[in-house]
Amino acid sequence: MSLRTISSATALALDQHLLSTGSFSLDQLIELAGLSIAQCMTLLSPPSKSPHILIACGPGNNGGDGLVAARHLHHFGYRPIVFYPKPGSKEVYGRLRAQLDFLGVPFTDDFEVELGRCDWVVDAIFGFSFSGPVRDPFGSVIALLAETTKPVLAVDVPSSWHVDLGPPADGLGAAYSPDVVVSLTAPKECMRAFKGRQFVGGRFVGQQVADMFGFDVPPFKGCDQVVEVVAVGERL
Amino acid sequence: MSLRTISSATALALDQHLLSTGSFSLDQLIELAGLSIAQCMTLLSPPSKSPHILIACGPGNNGGDGLVAARHLHHFGYRPIVFYPKPGSKEVYGRLRAQLDFLGVPFTDDFEVELGRCDWVVDAIFGFSFSGPVRDPFGSVIALLAETTKPVLAVDVPSSWHVDLGPPADGLGAAYSPDVVVSLTAPKECMRAFKGRQFVGGRFVGQQVADMFGFDVPPFKGCDQVVEVVAVGERL
Repeated sequence: MSLRTISSATALALDQHLLSTGSFSLDQLIELAGLSIAQCMTLLSPPSKSPHILIACGPGNNGGDGLVAARHLHHFGYRPIVFYPKPGSKEVYGRLRAQLDFLGVPFTDDFEVELGRCDWVVDAIFGFSFSGPVRDPFGSVIALLAETTKPVLAVDVPSSWHVDLGPPADGLGAAYSPDVVVSLTAPKECMRAFKGRQFVGGRFVGQQVADMFGFDVPPFKGCDQVVEVVAVGERL
Repeated sequence: MSLRTISSATALALDQHLLSTGSFSLDQLIELAGLSIAQCMTLLSPPSKSPHILIACGPGNNGGDGLVAARHLHHFGYRPIVFYPKPGSKEVYGRLRAQLDFLGVPFTDDFEVELGRCDWVVDAIFGFSFSGPVRDPFGSVIALLAETTKPVLAVDVPSSWHVDLGPPADGLGAAYSPDVVVSLTAPKECMRAFKGRQFVGGRFVGQQVADMFGFDVPPFKGCDQVVEVVAVGERL
């Protein structure tokens, strides 16, 4: 199924619509998004095969999705570890972090060491509202992700890519392409340049909202919160 | 697997623990509980076979779980309709209701008429904090549920049952036994008197919290949010 992509401006308008007219709370949206990421991991590789998941969380909502994913991955039998060097200021992030402490999910300050130990990496650094430049420590993390042989799942977009234009022509991120991207609600424009496995997660909206913003509700099955999609629009 | 039951007092203490030390928001707990109810319905009967789900929501958090379940059931392909005669005062309930309006999920004022039309009923009227008496319109609803031939799924406990002691000896609720109960987090004491199919939903806590409150984390599979359990402790 070929899904339409949305621009970063449309993604922002959709997000604001869900939080205002749609009456969703940020807690709800992050919970369902993070759950869909964790569910995607179970489809990619079960905890018996790949228990060690390293989750790199950025300072915004994308990082919040990563914190929620870490909690669900723990419940699903994985052994997640979280790199969260720049906690954001929203109150919900503090609670999501405390929920992980409560479960005994560890945090790390050393991304590189844990990258060597893990089976999979989740890139929950930047989402649809990203615009550069990338500052350290995230610059170093993305450079490591560009080089690693470990499989990487990116949340919503590959961090450091231009949300509308795709990977930068050179410099940081030009060499970075995760193995899997889970687009939240709808693929962003940059996904036209992506060659890996593509999923859509975050089952928030019906056809009416999709029509309003010009995207497609993907063919989720049963009660799944995530679905693999074959292609997203025309290639750039 | 035989699961331990918890008393209404323990259920209240656990709930307060999750919302304080556990750092969960009510939004999160209701979202995950309601999602587990909707997932259970997909296990019981797919939308192609039983599209019409009537959801009776009470004024408290059990009703909130029902509102969330209605939204996910809509996304899963069912055609839910909601009976919500006494909306509670918490702000989250208003938002959950608005989310259903936003999706075009209908509400009804006539439970009896819709009971005649539906394929399944969800009893989300009262939960673990219930203590009688039952007032109308819920008394009339429970009387109808006691008589109906339509299958009924109750959220957490069968509404009008004493949470610790089970069904009343006579009067309202004595003749009411739903076909399915989805206990949230852990079965309540009254479940020892229940003869139908039993599930546990609401995947919030780890073994440490379960040990603290004296219950069992049920054997959830994969990324499932609900699991069928064979028996809950000794029969009364």
